[in-house]
Amino acid sequence: MKLGFIGTGRMGGAMVLRLLAAKHDVGVYNRTPGKLKPLADAGAKILGSIADAARYGDVVYTMLADDSALMSVVFHPGGLLETMPEGRIHICAGTHGIPAIRALKEGHSHKKHALVAAPMMGRPELVTAGTAGVFASGPAAAMAKCKPLFDALGRKTFEGGDDPEAATAMKIANNFVLGCAIEAMGEGFALTRKYGVATSVFYDVMTDGLFNCSAYKVYGKIMVDESYSKVGQMAALGLKDANLALEAGFLASVPLPSGNVWRDRLVGAVAHGDGDKDWAVMALEQARASGLA
Amino acid sequence: MKLGFIGTGRMGGAMVLRLLAAKHDVGVYNRTPGKLKPLADAGAKILGSIADAARYGDVVYTMLADDSALMSVVFHPGGLLETMPEGRIHICAGTHGIPAIRALKEGHSHKKHALVAAPMMGRPELVTAGTAGVFASGPAAAMAKCKPLFDALGRKTFEGGDDPEAATAMKIANNFVLGCAIEAMGEGFALTRKYGVATSVFYDVMTDGLFNCSAYKVYGKIMVDESYSKVGQMAALGLKDANLALEAGFLASVPLPSGNVWRDRLVGAVAHGDGDKDWAVMALEQARASGLA
Amino acid sequence: MKLGFIGTGRMGGAMVLRLLAAKHDVGVYNRTPGKLKPLADAGAKILGSIADAARYGDVVYTMLADDSALMSVVFHPGGLLETMPEGRIHICAGTHGIPAIRALKEGHSHKKHALVAAPMMGRPELVTAGTAGVFASGPAAAMAKCKPLFDALGRKTFEGGDDPEAATAMKIANNFVLGCAIEAMGEGFALTRKYGVATSVFYDVMTDGLFNCSAYKVYGKIMVDESYSKVGQMAALGLKDANLALEAGFLASVPLPSGNVWRDRLVGAVAHGDGDKDWAVMALEQARASGLA
Amino acid sequence: MKLGFIGTGRMGGAMVLRLLAAKHDVGVYNRTPGKLKPLADAGAKILGSIADAARYGDVVYTMLADDSALMSVVFHPGGLLETMPEGRIHICAGTHGIPAIRALKEGHSHKKHALVAAPMMGRPELVTAGTAGVFASGPAAAMAKCKPLFDALGRKTFEGGDDPEAATAMKIANNFVLGCAIEAMGEGFALTRKYGVATSVFYDVMTDGLFNCSAYKVYGKIMVDESYSKVGQMAALGLKDANLALEAGFLASVPLPSGNVWRDRLVGAVAHGDGDKDWAVMALEQARASGLA
Repeated sequence: MKLGFIGTGRMGGAMVLRLLAAKHDVGVYNRTPGKLKPLADAGAKILGSIADAARYGDVVYTMLADDSALMSVVFHPGGLLETMPEGRIHICAGTHGIPAIRALKEGHSHKKHALVAAPMMGRPELVTAGTAGVFASGPAAAMAKCKPLFDALGRKTFEGGDDPEAATAMKIANNFVLGCAIEAMGEGFALTRKYGVATSVFYDVMTDGLFNCSAYKVYGKIMVDESYSKVGQMAALGLKDANLALEAGFLASVPLPSGNVWRDRLVGAVAHGDGDKDWAVMALEQARASGLA
Repeated sequence: MKLGFIGTGRMGGAMVLRLLAAKHDVGVYNRTPGKLKPLADAGAKILGSIADAARYGDVVYTMLADDSALMSVVFHPGGLLETMPEGRIHICAGTHGIPAIRALKEGHSHKKHALVAAPMMGRPELVTAGTAGVFASGPAAAMAKCKPLFDALGRKTFEGGDDPEAATAMKIANNFVLGCAIEAMGEGFALTRKYGVATSVFYDVMTDGLFNCSAYKVYGKIMVDESYSKVGQMAALGLKDANLALEAGFLASVPLPSGNVWRDRLVGAVAHGDGDKDWAVMALEQARASGLA
Repeated sequence: MKLGFIGTGRMGGAMVLRLLAAKHDVGVYNRTPGKLKPLADAGAKILGSIADAARYGDVVYTMLADDSALMSVVFHPGGLLETMPEGRIHICAGTHGIPAIRALKEGHSHKKHALVAAPMMGRPELVTAGTAGVFASGPAAAMAKCKPLFDALGRKTFEGGDDPEAATAMKIANNFVLGCAIEAMGEGFALTRKYGVATSVFYDVMTDGLFNCSAYKVYGKIMVDESYSKVGQMAALGLKDANLALEAGFLASVPLPSGNVWRDRLVGAVAHGDGDKDWAVMALEQARASGLA
Repeated sequence: MKLGFIGTGRMGGAMVLRLLAAKHDVGVYNRTPGKLKPLADAGAKILGSIADAARYGDVVYTMLADDSALMSVVFHPGGLLETMPEGRIHICAGTHGIPAIRALKEGHSHKKHALVAAPMMGRPELVTAGTAGVFASGPAAAMAKCKPLFDALGRKTFEGGDDPEAATAMKIANNFVLGCAIEAMGEGFALTRKYGVATSVFYDVMTDGLFNCSAYKVYGKIMVDESYSKVGQMAALGLKDANLALEAGFLASVPLPSGNVWRDRLVGAVAHGDGDKDWAVMALEQARASGLA
C-alpha cells in the first residue's frame, strides 16, 4: 500500500521501517528533517510538507508526541484537514486524549476523510522486534483497508469497533491499569519494608506467584534496584498519561479512584524533584510519604 | 518430624495430607471432629484436645480461620500458652492481623516458646498440587527446624527474617497488591466500556500484554463472564483482608491510598448486597458507581 | 473612574450596577445585547464592540462565563489584545483556570497591558447587597488604581500580591474548601443515617457547634430537605470547579486528595443523571454509594 | 438525682463539678485517686470501688479515655456488669467505637440494665463554661430519666433516638466532619501558598466568608501560626478518631472516602514524627507532600 507518514521520532521511525520491510510504499515527513536519512536508506520517500504526505497515498499515518503537535499537523493552515483529498484515511497513532480525537473526528467528517485511531502497544524496541501490538478502531471499511498495515506493525491487533475513541480509550486504560499496578507495588514494598522484609524477597513473592508478568517484573525490578535514574518512561510523562485517563473518565462519567491515587503519587514525585526519573519512582515517593526515604 | 496440627478445614486438611505424604508424623486436632476421617485414613493420629496437639511433637501448627479462633486456641484455658512445653515451636499458618501476631509473640516469649509465622500462598487446590508457596519468618533456629515442613507444603518458601510479623506482612501485602489489581481492572473495564470497547477485547489487551499473569487472567475472566456467583474468595472476606492491610499500614505508619480505594469498593459492594459474591464483584460495584449497572 | 465592562450576565450586570451607583462611568458591551437595557437605564453607556470597551477608559473589566469565552474576547481578531491601548489595565473577574490566566499574562505583557485578576466571592445577590468580597492580585500600580472599583463592588478585598495567578488560586481554593465540606457533610449524613440518626438532628449537631457558618448551613439544609432540584450551583458546574482545582494542583505540584474525592462524587452524580441538580446532590450520590438511595 | 461517676480525668472532673453545681448527689470513683480532692471539696462523695459507684444511685456515668478502659470497667470481675443492680442505667460518655457500644448493649441487656450513650460535644473548658453540648441516645424511659443530668452538663442535648449507637455515631461523625475540614484547609493552604498567597490572607478568605465558624477559625489559626506544638488534640488521638469513623463506616457499609484522606494524612504525620503535635499538623504534612516543608 502507498501511504504518507508524518512524525518519525523513535516510535515513528521504528514503525516506518516495519512498513517498508512489509513492502509498503512509504512517503515520510518530519518537521525536523535530520531523522529521515536511515528511513530513506531503507526505501522511504522523503517528502517536503504535510500536504505532500497527505496526498502521497490512500492513507496518512501520524505518530506525534502529543495533542498539541497533532492539533497543529491537522488543523493549521496547510494541515491535513486542508490538504487531504476526500475519501482518504487518517490513521492516528500516538497517545492522545479523548478531546483531541473528538476534534479530529469532527474536523475530518466535514471533509469526508475517515479517521482511524491506532495507537501502538509497546515501546519502539518491541515494534522493531515485531512483538508490539496495535489498538485500532474506526469505520469498518477504513479498518479493513488498514489491516495490512497493522499486520506489518505488530503481532496482534486489538480491534475496538467503529469509533476512533475506542482504541484511544484502550490505550489510555492500559496505561492506567499499569500505573495503578506500579503504585500498588510501591505501597506493598513500603508496607513490607516496615515489617523488615527485604525488597528482593517481596519482589520474588509477587513475581513468582500471582504477578508473574512483565508489568510487575520490569517495574518491581527497578524498585528493588532503586535504578530510577535509568529512565524508560519519565514520571512527568506518566503524569501526562494519568491526566489523560482522568480526563477520559470525566468525559465518560467514570470515577477512577485508583487513578487519582496514581496521579497524586506522580504529582508528589514531581513536587519532590523526581519528574525526570523513571515513573517507577512512584515507589520512592510512597516510601517518602511513609517516612522511609 | 513429629508435629501437632490444629485446624483441619479445607486448607488445614490439604496441608496435613502434604505433610503425611512427606512422611511426617502428624497428630491432628479440630474443634469439630467430622473432618478428621480422611486424615486418619491417610495416617494422621487423631487427638482429643489442644493440649494433646501442643505436646504431640516439637512443633504445633495452627491453621485457623481468623484472629478470634487463633486467640482462643492460644490464650484460652487449656490453650497453647498453657499447655505447650518450653522450647517448642508454634507455627502459625492462617491469614492473621499484625496485632494478633504481636499478642502471640508476647505470650509465647513469656513461656519460652518460639513463634514462626508461616501463612500459605495459594488456595487449598494448589497446596494439594504442590504448587503453593509458603511465607515464613521467625527466629533463625526455629526456622531451620521447620524448613522440612515448609518444603513438604509448597514448591517455594519466601523467608522474611527473624520476626514473625514479616511473613504476616508479606501475606497481607500480597493480598493487598492483588486487591488493588482487581480494583484497577474494574476501573479499566468501566472506562473502556463507556467508550464502546467489549470487555473481552480489553481483557485480551491486558492479559496478552503487560498483565499476562494469573491475577489478571483469573479475575479479569470473572469480570468478562460476570460470573460473580461462582465464588472463589467472598467479597466480605476480601474486605477482611483489606482491613488487615490498612491496620498493618496504620500500625507501621504507612499510608496506603490504593488500599483505601480497594476497601471502599468492597464496602460499597457489601452495601449493595454483594458481600457473598466473589470479590471480583468489585468490578460490578465500579460499574454501578459509573452508572453502568 | 471611566471603564469598559464586557460580559453583563447575572453577575456582570450586578457588578455594573454597583459601579454605576459608586459614580463610575461604565461603558458596557455584551455579545447578546438583550441584557443591556436595565444597565443603560441606570446610566451605563452601551458600546457596540469589544474594541469600544477596550478603549472606553483606563480599565476594561471582563466577567465571562468560562475560559473559552475569555479566550475569544481576549485573543480573537478585534479582541482585547489587539485593541487595548498600551498601558491600560484588564481586570479579569470570572472564575478561570490557571492556564487561561497564564495565557493572558503572556499575551498582555507583549502588548504592555497590565493584567489584574479579580474574581468575586459570593453570588450576584450578595454583590447587589454589597456584601460580596473581591479576590484581587496583579502588579502593584495597577492594583492601586483599581482599588476604588473593588471598594465599590464588595465589602472587602482579599489581596494576593502582584501575580494575577494568586487571586485566581484563592477563588479556586475557596471553592475547593467548600466542595470538600459539602462532600464531608454528605458522608457524615450517610454514616449517621445508617445508625438511625435523623438528618435534621445531625444538621443541628454540625451547625449549632463547630460548623455554625453559611457553608454548612446552606448546603446542610439542602441535604436535610433533599431540595436538590432548587438549584443554586449546578453539579455539572461544581465539577468544572473541581477540575479547575485539580488542574491548579497539578500545575503547582500539589496533590489534593480531598479534591479527588470531591470530583469523583460529582462525576458519579453526573453518571447517575444528577448533573443539573444543585451540587449538594453530592450527598445523594454518597447515599447511593452507601446503598441508601 | 443520686448517681455514681467513674472516670474523673479532665473531662470527667469538669462534668462532675457541673452536676454538683446543679445539686445532684454524685459519688465518684477513679482508678487513681489523686484527682478526686477538688471534687470532694465541691461536695462529691469519694467511693472506693467500681461496685460502690455502680450501686450509689439510679445511674452510673462513665467517662473513660478509650475502649480498653471502658471494657475493663464494665466487663472485668467486679465491673459494672457484675455489680450494677437490675433496672439501673449506665450512661456512657466517652468517645467510644461502635463495637464497644455493641458489646455493652449486649452485656447490659442480659443483666436488665439500660444503656444510654451520651458523649460530650466540646472540650472540658466548654463543659465548665456551660457551653458544651451532649449527644444522647438510648431507651426512651432511661433517656427521660437522664434528661436533668444532660441539662446540667450542657446547653443543648442532641437526641438520636432509642439506640445507644446513634449518639456514638453522631460523636464520631462530628469528629469526622471536623477532621475532613482540617484536611481540606491544609490542602487549600498548600495550593494557595504555591501561587504566592500568604497564609494569613487565605485564612481571612475562608473565615470571613463561607467558613466563619470555630472549626475553621481555630484550626486555620494554628496553621497560619504554625503553632502545632501547642497541643489541643494530639495527631495520634485524631488518628484514633479517624479509625473509629472508618470502623463505623465499615460496620454500617458506608464508604467514607474523605475519611480515608483524613486518616492517611494523620498516618503520614505520625510517620514523620508529628504524632504528638496538634492534629492541625495535617496541614504541615500536606505541605510536606507538596514539597513545601
